[in-house]
Amino acid sequence: MSTAEVAKQFTAALKAGKFDEAERYWSDDVVSYEAQDGPMREVRGRTAVHSKGEWWTANHDVHSFEAEGPYLNGDCFALHFKINVTPKATGQRTQMDEIGLYTVKDGKIVEERFFY
Amino acid sequence: MSTAEVAKQFTAALKAGKFDEAERYWSDDVVSYEAQDGPMREVRGRTAVHSKGEWWTANHDVHSFEAEGPYLNGDCFALHFKINVTPKATGQRTQMDEIGLYTVKDGKIVEERFFY
Repeated sequence: MSTAEVAKQFTAALKAGKFDEAERYWSDDVVSYEAQDGPMREVRGRTAVHSKGEWWTANHDVHSFEAEGPYLNGDCFALHFKINVTPKATGQRTQMDEIGLYTVKDGKIVEERFFY
Repeated sequence: MSTAEVAKQFTAALKAGKFDEAERYWSDDVVSYEAQDGPMREVRGRTAVHSKGEWWTANHDVHSFEAEGPYLNGDCFALHFKINVTPKATGQRTQMDEIGLYTVKDGKIVEERFFY
């Protein structure tokens, strides 16, 4: 599957809120990078990245989720996320605004990197 | 200058339409990558990247220019551009929607890469 096709199908799954379906496009060796220090800075492998998502979902009330894109260049694509959310730890409703940059190899997402 | 400071000042210059001022943050060896094939795919060095911008400005009527960001991760930052423009070659007004990904080294932008 081409990078463009992976980007299109992965993004469609996210926009439909089908996160389990989106994970089908991950490589087993997918690595997820956050911009800040801490345990989420670099998470390696399908099981760990899935757990990261589970943790996030369990700890946030999501009021709205918008993904713009995909935007393509070579074997990479970007998405722009705008997520209105209340972290359960703080109870403070906030607007998340971030870019996700994805790298595709052999038809699978091998890396996701978040910018904010 | 830190990546965050470069990102902030470069973005402020772009948002103010001060493109000459933005170029101060380029390395002399800056490389600019587009997503499509052709002569603009990879443009190397300050003089050539400046000429690329001059060409673009001379060949487009810009109706509005919006830059969201900067979004940071490590030595990179991203911007989301929404530009309403009429290419003089076609006369067809169109909405450009793209992500710019910038890499900073030693306080200067060494690479810009556009996604669309």
